[in-house]
Amino acid sequence: MKAQIRVLGIDDSPFKFRDEKALVVGAMVRVPNYLESVMRTDVTVDGTDATEKLIEMVSRSRYRDQVKAVMLDGIALAGFNVVDIKGLCDELHAPVITVTRDKPNLEKMKTALRGHFPDWQRRYSLISSLELRPITTEHKPIYACAVGSSWGEAVELVRMVTVRGAVPEPVRMAHLIASAMVRGESYGRS
Amino acid sequence: MKAQIRVLGIDDSPFKFRDEKALVVGAMVRVPNYLESVMRTDVTVDGTDATEKLIEMVSRSRYRDQVKAVMLDGIALAGFNVVDIKGLCDELHAPVITVTRDKPNLEKMKTALRGHFPDWQRRYSLISSLELRPITTEHKPIYACAVGSSWGEAVELVRMVTVRGAVPEPVRMAHLIASAMVRGESYGRS
Repeated sequence: MKAQIRVLGIDDSPFKFRDEKALVVGAMVRVPNYLESVMRTDVTVDGTDATEKLIEMVSRSRYRDQVKAVMLDGIALAGFNVVDIKGLCDELHAPVITVTRDKPNLEKMKTALRGHFPDWQRRYSLISSLELRPITTEHKPIYACAVGSSWGEAVELVRMVTVRGAVPEPVRMAHLIASAMVRGESYGRS
Repeated sequence: MKAQIRVLGIDDSPFKFRDEKALVVGAMVRVPNYLESVMRTDVTVDGTDATEKLIEMVSRSRYRDQVKAVMLDGIALAGFNVVDIKGLCDELHAPVITVTRDKPNLEKMKTALRGHFPDWQRRYSLISSLELRPITTEHKPIYACAVGSSWGEAVELVRMVTVRGAVPEPVRMAHLIASAMVRGESYGRS
């Protein structure tokens, strides 16, 4: 039953660098775009707790055993709080797919990380170990990486929850919610 | 173009009576259930600022001129912060429709208001001036009142944004978002 497939989209709120924490929102969506549950947590700006906080948020969810896949907007939350995608996938027993509209420039990122974090190598290796590949959409392509599923399955899952534009609905909704809580109103590019 | 019709659903978060404010969320939905924008404000628990705060929230929205109708979960936010539905409709130049799953008991409400608020008559007259009528759905009926549109138009608008169960999507989504922000996770009855 395709209609029963649930995908959890995750995104963070905008933040200012003097903020200690940023809000992180999860939107549980039934294929293709029926919002079924919303969840929240917070993570430390530029911290190292993103993976742990996401595991905790999903683990306490009533839908934890029904999550068919987790989709993240990029690989880092709240600045450079990099998510260990493989670790998240192992803990949640579900494929984890990152999606991003713009292909990141790894060399620039390396320089930024090295300039700011004593543990830059760990952060950079989490980022650079993943291979981003394009998924074509009606709109521009979206770049994704998948852990815990074949590439073909990941592409199918992303397409199942993409309604307009390039961004999968669970991630787009999580983004709209998280931004609105901080900014007062949000509206998405699609 | 039906697909371009936008309905704003509004609901409040759960709160404790010692809280001064409750979160209020607006979910702007394109027919039937495409979430386009999220907005927020807060209102005083048992206060009298709900109407003013809603006008302000909608007025600063990028979509203010595209709102075809506003749907509220009931007529009061944050306890007994009663919304002046007619005033809201006049200010926003859009029909305002309240929906509620259970028909309220006006006599009980009158007693409660009288026991708690020196201005109970004003609050009660805002509530009792509106006539709730049932709209049949696949599920149970939902009770609604409409200001600024004919009853027939209101029924059509409610049905246009009802996907599953009895609650219109804009209100259901606003509810899921507002509760999750306070409770950590939300999941709706439908």
